[in-house]
Amino acid sequence: MTETAVPRTAAGTNTSGTAAPEAQAGTVPQDVTAAVHAIADRSREASRRMARANRAWKDQALLEIADALVARRDAVIAANREDLEAGRQNGTSKALLDRLSLDAGRIDGLAAALRSLAALPDPVGTVARGQTLPNGLRLRQVHVPMGVVAAIYEARPNVTVDIAGLALKSGNAVILRGGSAAARTNAALIGIIRDSLDRVGLPADAVQTVDEYGRAGANVLMQARGRVDVLIPRGGRDLIQTVVNNARVPVIETGEGNVHIFLDESAREEMAVEILLNAKTQRPSVCNTVETLLVHSGAAAAPAVLAALAAAGVRLHVDGRVAQLLPDGVAAEPATDQDWGREYMDLDLAVAMVDSMDEAISHIRRWTTGHTEAIITNDLSNAEKFIAEIDSAAVIVNASTRFTDGGEFGLGAEVGISTQKMHARGPMGLQELTTTKWIVQGEGQTRS
Amino acid sequence: MTETAVPRTAAGTNTSGTAAPEAQAGTVPQDVTAAVHAIADRSREASRRMARANRAWKDQALLEIADALVARRDAVIAANREDLEAGRQNGTSKALLDRLSLDAGRIDGLAAALRSLAALPDPVGTVARGQTLPNGLRLRQVHVPMGVVAAIYEARPNVTVDIAGLALKSGNAVILRGGSAAARTNAALIGIIRDSLDRVGLPADAVQTVDEYGRAGANVLMQARGRVDVLIPRGGRDLIQTVVNNARVPVIETGEGNVHIFLDESAREEMAVEILLNAKTQRPSVCNTVETLLVHSGAAAAPAVLAALAAAGVRLHVDGRVAQLLPDGVAAEPATDQDWGREYMDLDLAVAMVDSMDEAISHIRRWTTGHTEAIITNDLSNAEKFIAEIDSAAVIVNASTRFTDGGEFGLGAEVGISTQKMHARGPMGLQELTTTKWIVQGEGQTRS
Repeated sequence: MTETAVPRTAAGTNTSGTAAPEAQAGTVPQDVTAAVHAIADRSREASRRMARANRAWKDQALLEIADALVARRDAVIAANREDLEAGRQNGTSKALLDRLSLDAGRIDGLAAALRSLAALPDPVGTVARGQTLPNGLRLRQVHVPMGVVAAIYEARPNVTVDIAGLALKSGNAVILRGGSAAARTNAALIGIIRDSLDRVGLPADAVQTVDEYGRAGANVLMQARGRVDVLIPRGGRDLIQTVVNNARVPVIETGEGNVHIFLDESAREEMAVEILLNAKTQRPSVCNTVETLLVHSGAAAAPAVLAALAAAGVRLHVDGRVAQLLPDGVAAEPATDQDWGREYMDLDLAVAMVDSMDEAISHIRRWTTGHTEAIITNDLSNAEKFIAEIDSAAVIVNASTRFTDGGEFGLGAEVGISTQKMHARGPMGLQELTTTKWIVQGEGQTRS
Repeated sequence: MTETAVPRTAAGTNTSGTAAPEAQAGTVPQDVTAAVHAIADRSREASRRMARANRAWKDQALLEIADALVARRDAVIAANREDLEAGRQNGTSKALLDRLSLDAGRIDGLAAALRSLAALPDPVGTVARGQTLPNGLRLRQVHVPMGVVAAIYEARPNVTVDIAGLALKSGNAVILRGGSAAARTNAALIGIIRDSLDRVGLPADAVQTVDEYGRAGANVLMQARGRVDVLIPRGGRDLIQTVVNNARVPVIETGEGNVHIFLDESAREEMAVEILLNAKTQRPSVCNTVETLLVHSGAAAAPAVLAALAAAGVRLHVDGRVAQLLPDGVAAEPATDQDWGREYMDLDLAVAMVDSMDEAISHIRRWTTGHTEAIITNDLSNAEKFIAEIDSAAVIVNASTRFTDGGEFGLGAEVGISTQKMHARGPMGLQELTTTKWIVQGEGQTRS
């Protein structure tokens, strides 16, 4: 049985219970730096053992963690209740409390996700490229674990289990920093994970937390060049901005989606209505939900689409020309520039009219976050132009934007959705938690 | 004929003629920020046209540039002479002047490299992964250009042509910042490149420079989030450190190689001698040359290897046990910890004795920069252990470390050698200057 992490009051700990971004620049006490570096050094040691563990062993660990989560459900729920109670006393919003809360059903869901992860192929050892060179050298580029992965996220305990599972499956060690409002829940979950690793003979230090060091600990993580191989911030815009601005270690930005759908002249009404309803109302609080609809001035499908959206309870924010198009009885409010740039994550949709595809593309280029854009069209050359000219992680023709998702793309699991161009773009699965190594084998070759 | 960049005295310009790192943190005048942002915005526009240019068109541009470099050789050499003269007056070292200098032969070499680049396949449009999903959606992950690539490098005019060629072939626009000691030469080269682009109907702004804005311009580039998609520093340790510490845009670190060779007990003498001579003396000033030799205490090949190196003029820096192993007449000086951490880039070699492979691996882990390490052995399980446990961009068995090179690996060309784990690791070719885009095509699919 390994020692489990227990949150304690330490220099820099934020126990205010808010779900605000926990990572902010600032001075860091010397002892916090030393403590976090020691955690990172243990993580490096553990990462070396994880890198050599074969798939069967890693899968055994995931299944063991899944079983332990179910078996120790009551302890997790008890810790979660304390976090929730503290949150309520601090006036945390209902929405944040909902994301923080775990019940038996949600814990079973986390265990099920780990079991699915165990069923996925191992990215480690996959050969990306390889050939025998003219001089006889055998060359292979092989996927290997990143090493030490760090994650900074908000008060969502499910992310703790998700990221730990993905990191372990891909042969990495992980250092977690969750929102302090979930500190007790995270400590309980991490304790269960570490015990399980220990039971199957893998290093407990493959999963560690710096939660007890609060924001100061997060700062040290962000600056730990050479100790942290990649840092993944997962959360809202403020958290990601803070990490990007302060990090000196490689970062993968995830998240924000100001997603557009362009309703082309040739769009068929029935398809357009179905896609828009799905993209806006199926789960409005996530990053792949549509936020702006661009309507071609000649699109016959537009009134039916707007009427269907309004009937489904969507609040429309429209420009002047769209306002004139609204069927009787469909309400809307005037849109401002703020609406074009906004990720509502709610039952709101900005709607603008354009006179051409080029105008639609210009609008998207100006306002997009580069996550997902879709076109609804029956015109082949317009579809191809859209695909060629839109520079986003996912470009969709005649389907819902809600498909931009690791599970839907067949990656099996998802660390997050990268909106940057380096290393990973779009849904990040297990492979994106690996790097590569060139292996060269010869029999004495020298260069001339 | 497009306007060519002409260096002028501007705020922040360093005209001291030194080849020291040009990028340093500091305050940036408002007008420099606006000017560099305007350059970046023109680069973005140009990148959109480059992204749509097919391979034939891009290759035509490369061949046009190659021809123009040869045709306008005299103008380049005249500009280079001015740079060299200014450098001499500023007391620039002979080695740096040599790297700065261009003659007819070197210019022909640059033209030849561009022609080879034209013969390489186009990475743009390559499908990385793809499948039809259970719901009928057709999914493809396709390589697309990064967009706006920036490069900050030292006073080596060949890098100007190299990086511009690689960026153009991979469908990108590039913003260059070379060492100010080469400002006149770079201006001449960039003028030729821009004229050539214009002649073939591609945007001249696909290749721009911020040289006229000096260090202040480099600082703006490093901070231009959203405007620069990737920044590649190419040069020595100080330059790379400065960029990594100050950049807010994604960076790919290149360079530094503290390369090790482990001489295992079972190494055959003849092979060991040949590999060590090649790895140390064939071109000692580059990053894939060996800097430390680790000798197993039972390696019978060791004395012959040390004698051969000494005979080839290599200065040996040895620990106490290696000293006792030196054949008569072979001189050496005692090594200190400084030697283990040093990238000599000269005819110097640190030599340490170890009693086991684990000890060799520990030494490497402590001192390596993660570039290249090699083992010379005839023991299969030792070879496999070395491959599994050494975490460097290239791991070599029984061949010279000099093979870690884009050309040697069959990538055709090389932007640099990445020593980071994100995005690119080891020699970076054309593919590493691309990102990917997910393209999803359906007929009305929605998510349930």
